[in-house]
Amino acid sequence: MNIMNKNIGVFDSGIGGLTVLKSLIGHFPNENFIYLGDTARVPYGNKGANTVIRYAIESTEFLKKQDIKLLVVACNTASSVALETLKKTVQIPIIGVVEPSAKEAYAVSKTKMIGVIGTRRTISSAAYTQALKRISSDVKVYGTACPLFVHLVEEGWTDNEVASKTTKIYLDSFKNIEIDVLILGCTHYPLLLDIIKKEIGSKVTLIESGEATAKEVMLIMNELHIANKNANKAQSIRYYVTDDSDGFDRIAGTFLKNKYIKSTFVEL
Amino acid sequence: MNIMNKNIGVFDSGIGGLTVLKSLIGHFPNENFIYLGDTARVPYGNKGANTVIRYAIESTEFLKKQDIKLLVVACNTASSVALETLKKTVQIPIIGVVEPSAKEAYAVSKTKMIGVIGTRRTISSAAYTQALKRISSDVKVYGTACPLFVHLVEEGWTDNEVASKTTKIYLDSFKNIEIDVLILGCTHYPLLLDIIKKEIGSKVTLIESGEATAKEVMLIMNELHIANKNANKAQSIRYYVTDDSDGFDRIAGTFLKNKYIKSTFVEL
Repeated sequence: MNIMNKNIGVFDSGIGGLTVLKSLIGHFPNENFIYLGDTARVPYGNKGANTVIRYAIESTEFLKKQDIKLLVVACNTASSVALETLKKTVQIPIIGVVEPSAKEAYAVSKTKMIGVIGTRRTISSAAYTQALKRISSDVKVYGTACPLFVHLVEEGWTDNEVASKTTKIYLDSFKNIEIDVLILGCTHYPLLLDIIKKEIGSKVTLIESGEATAKEVMLIMNELHIANKNANKAQSIRYYVTDDSDGFDRIAGTFLKNKYIKSTFVEL
Repeated sequence: MNIMNKNIGVFDSGIGGLTVLKSLIGHFPNENFIYLGDTARVPYGNKGANTVIRYAIESTEFLKKQDIKLLVVACNTASSVALETLKKTVQIPIIGVVEPSAKEAYAVSKTKMIGVIGTRRTISSAAYTQALKRISSDVKVYGTACPLFVHLVEEGWTDNEVASKTTKIYLDSFKNIEIDVLILGCTHYPLLLDIIKKEIGSKVTLIESGEATAKEVMLIMNELHIANKNANKAQSIRYYVTDDSDGFDRIAGTFLKNKYIKSTFVEL
């Protein structure tokens, strides 16, 4: 098969990566996608680095077998701790969400004081700090872990009092710091965008993984000449999940405004 | 080895089962314990039945290899969906938390209108309803899933405004029902006892899995003559976890008031 006709693989610990998939679908109408949600072992964010690396390798190997031309690690926790290992594991271009978001945050920031929110593992890994410091040592990075955000999103509680009270508590640490950009360093968080915006104020620009990563994917595909140039009349998106419950199809269907999503169960 | 000297095995998806272990330690000073927390794949409560069964079998097989004389499934979700399968898998007495809690709830209730709170999977399995109906078909059972409770406990948010607001939302469904007993059908929930008590009111008796299950274990061990009759001068409790992070030791140490807990990592 011509490499241009191969699929783009996307994986996440669960449904959060759909925010990235949505951006990718929008930017790449000619491409076909395979999405894997490791829903049996979600969440990754409060687990140890070795556990996350092990699971990320299994997901990557599964997608590699599906003959993909490029892999997007649409999970901040996995991107933070497993990306280098994954790059050694398989011989295809692998793009995480950390570097693209850091790049965009740096470009947008005037004060070069940048906030990051993410899971406990993402924040403790300091992956965003390191990525931003690689761009410029002058930047100041402030990170806060928001472990409950993932669960509020999974529960669908994105605009009630519990969500707003939780957001207030987590973002309180940014109160006396003059950040002008806040990276949403977890692919679940865009679903809490309105409430985060309200709490952090209009002077702070929010960076989402999806859009930043889609731009990076475009750069890489052009550079490697692997983008599909032919119009794709029936874009195909296949979904795999590691848990046997039907929650994924329902949530993904609502989120992607496509009621016909039917994922396939796979045991990793 | 004389069967009486063997260990009692206890497993849970994570730290919740420690509330059961604590009761067991209190009731059985002569016994030694092996606790397994499947922390790499926690939580179980919102996952499919087949996934939970698969993980429960792996945990059971691991503990069986440690030469235990009895197994306590200290997780309501696993007890609800996997107990019958586990009993077919290994040839030792296996005690779940559902039957003992149901028995105690029925004994305590005067109105025979009983509430149950638990994870999404526990409630949707109707395991408590079935267990109570087996005791008497007259009982009326009202179940409500409280998926965020587990995460509040894991986050240590057991007495702040978010916890009380969440409790208010979840327990609202019991407002117009005259239950006189509420089963805490998840081993994490005793850590939210105060806030649940406050919300549900003093007329409702709360049933915890730990105490009810410890009584059942006593009955079974006496019946089978496998209780250790000799005083145990240095009670041994070994901890195994499936995740490599150090969160478990810290939380378990605080909860069991034992600062020397050092769990061993095991890959299932």
